Amino acid sequence: MVTDERVRQLQSAMGEQDVDATVLLLTENIVLMTGHYIRIPGLGLAVVPREGEAALLVPDFDEERARGSWDGDLRTFTAVVADDAPKGTALSSLQDLLGVGPGVSAHLRDLASEFGARGGRIGFEGSFEQVAPACLPGEPNAVGLPTQQLIRDTFATGTLVDVTEALETMRAVKTEYELEKLRTVHEIALIGFAAFKEHARPGRTEVEIRSAVESAICNEGHGYKGAKVVRAFATVNSGVELRNGWNYFLSRPRVVEKNDLVMVEMATVADGYWSDQTRTVVAGRATDDQRAAYRAVREAMDAAFAAAVPGATGGTADAAARTIIRSTGYDGVYPHQTGHGVGFRYHETRPNLVPGSEDVLETGMVIVAEPAFYTTTLAGGIRQEDAAVVTSQGARPLTSMEFDFED
Amino acid sequence: MVTDERVRQLQSAMGEQDVDATVLLLTENIVLMTGHYIRIPGLGLAVVPREGEAALLVPDFDEERARGSWDGDLRTFTAVVADDAPKGTALSSLQDLLGVGPGVSAHLRDLASEFGARGGRIGFEGSFEQVAPACLPGEPNAVGLPTQQLIRDTFATGTLVDVTEALETMRAVKTEYELEKLRTVHEIALIGFAAFKEHARPGRTEVEIRSAVESAICNEGHGYKGAKVVRAFATVNSGVELRNGWNYFLSRPRVVEKNDLVMVEMATVADGYWSDQTRTVVAGRATDDQRAAYRAVREAMDAAFAAAVPGATGGTADAAARTIIRSTGYDGVYPHQTGHGVGFRYHETRPNLVPGSEDVLETGMVIVAEPAFYTTTLAGGIRQEDAAVVTSQGARPLTSMEFDFED
Repeated sequence: MVTDERVRQLQSAMGEQDVDATVLLLTENIVLMTGHYIRIPGLGLAVVPREGEAALLVPDFDEERARGSWDGDLRTFTAVVADDAPKGTALSSLQDLLGVGPGVSAHLRDLASEFGARGGRIGFEGSFEQVAPACLPGEPNAVGLPTQQLIRDTFATGTLVDVTEALETMRAVKTEYELEKLRTVHEIALIGFAAFKEHARPGRTEVEIRSAVESAICNEGHGYKGAKVVRAFATVNSGVELRNGWNYFLSRPRVVEKNDLVMVEMATVADGYWSDQTRTVVAGRATDDQRAAYRAVREAMDAAFAAAVPGATGGTADAAARTIIRSTGYDGVYPHQTGHGVGFRYHETRPNLVPGSEDVLETGMVIVAEPAFYTTTLAGGIRQEDAAVVTSQGARPLTSMEFDFED
Repeated sequence: MVTDERVRQLQSAMGEQDVDATVLLLTENIVLMTGHYIRIPGLGLAVVPREGEAALLVPDFDEERARGSWDGDLRTFTAVVADDAPKGTALSSLQDLLGVGPGVSAHLRDLASEFGARGGRIGFEGSFEQVAPACLPGEPNAVGLPTQQLIRDTFATGTLVDVTEALETMRAVKTEYELEKLRTVHEIALIGFAAFKEHARPGRTEVEIRSAVESAICNEGHGYKGAKVVRAFATVNSGVELRNGWNYFLSRPRVVEKNDLVMVEMATVADGYWSDQTRTVVAGRATDDQRAAYRAVREAMDAAFAAAVPGATGGTADAAARTIIRSTGYDGVYPHQTGHGVGFRYHETRPNLVPGSEDVLETGMVIVAEPAFYTTTLAGGIRQEDAAVVTSQGARPLTSMEFDFED
């Protein structure tokens, strides 16, 4: 069960912003507050009062699953009732389609009264401009004008307060419960790495290797330590065009040739908790330059993690990695970030590990480091990426896996 | 190449709302205007003036791909430049991370001047609360307060006008170019159906069948009629719990048993164009009741399409299907919508085919119909879903595929 730690943190921030209640509609923030992974984005909300217990609202068919992580105030509404739906105010066209009717509005009106927040200052997710992919294959939801109007109507208020900054800040540092969930998804991701190593062979196409990685995670990840919703999103690239691997190119039907570099960039989600990892291998034998660069990339990742102590900045951790990459003297480029926060999304907004970043690292933050080389000299690009939790001894990897760079 | 048909349509709507320029940041609306599928959501914009040519802004590394569909005004900016990034105003934390710097802002300021829109009424995507999943595996973007502030700053205006209604309305009716793209993605989806029929066998788990479907579409879909970005999202369910199949349950590690009903719900995307389809089969031999229900479901789908003539309402098409389902006399439920629009997303907001819907159907709209039975009598649920384009002779399926219901 999720503790009320996250609710108390948000309430503390709400106190600073003089917010009377906060309405959360993004699935990632509902995971944060309640541990529950909303099945259909938009069909589920959390409402947090200034003091006291938060409420989770879910469709009646999701009650049992919600009880798996949340033992607080749980209220249900009827959804998917086109057959004889009472027509009413819905949050969105999706809710119109699924016949949600007036159930959600009625709950919000009740909560506004119970929380003494009618006519008050109501917090909302005003500045989330990246949103986590959905639980079920479908559209994630976003918070736009209709949600703002619904809050205005149900809370009888004209004052909405953006609480994005508070949410993003508290999300960066993970709780023990969340670290355990993140360890699980990172262990599931190793299934994908093993499949990658097995399938990154001459004769396979990039898209076939991508499918093998995603399938392995799906097939073996479901049920792993009780995981109920698992999905991987992999991108596989290969060959000399990996020299442009920093510009996020797409998996192709290209056939891997003997001695090609092959890279997998992989997002994995388990029950709302995300990982972001990368591996590069040679489909055959590496050159001496490639071996040296691979060692440097691994050293750079270790250096970033070693520098990631509480009180250090994202810029310091970035520099630790970047210095090693540059000191090799290769003619390659390393134009992207060294790392970023991860957990409630594939990419969280803080801390950023980029040159000059003044984001201050704190114990319990989960970061990735992803140093790389991209150069013609290496006949491609090499990147390695893992996640680690910041401790006073530096950031400690959530999982470790030794990986043969070449055959 | 995309014609300027969509730009002209939006300009006409902008005229009615007295909007001087519109800034589009959602990938699905950039596909609509330019045919270009933005690689990293948020790293790319389209700006449409009240009159004249629209401009597409993409990272420099995406210029060549953008030229594949858009021969209009194309401007590039530098992205992924952490190494020596000029720090500046970015739209979002993602852009901070990727070192986009001031390039986007500068372009927007230029366009505000060139379009004579400085200080004017600027259109934005204020009410999109469902967003299409991303091109690359990552977070879709949303339009929140930061984007609104960026528009205010760069267009030196205090007046933002929500143009969501106009965009959603024009999107519902597809152009010839878009119909061709939609036919392609629906053909690619058939690869998944074939894999489903092959793998929906006793002994396989739901998640294994899901992986087989998604892999087949990925592996064979890339390159099909030139498709560059292909992904499928399948949900597979089986057995008696399909009697609750209407409540969107999740693929599980459950093993399919002999004579189980097995259902796949499948979203497929190719280069920004989406399909939404469903099939149900029996992993063995069906009962007479199941056969009769399957026939009724197919008849109901045909009836919805036959009723979908220009001038009819979504409610009429829904009723045509629902009447057939009910007339069978089975004790099942059919609580969800009969259908909805599809194309720029897996679910578009209009037209909705639900009871009482007054959405008026028009020639060129693309709709899905997905009638179903869910009942213990049938030992599960049966749903079938295809897409069709509205014509004066009724809606004509984009693809057809005969499918054996049982072995």
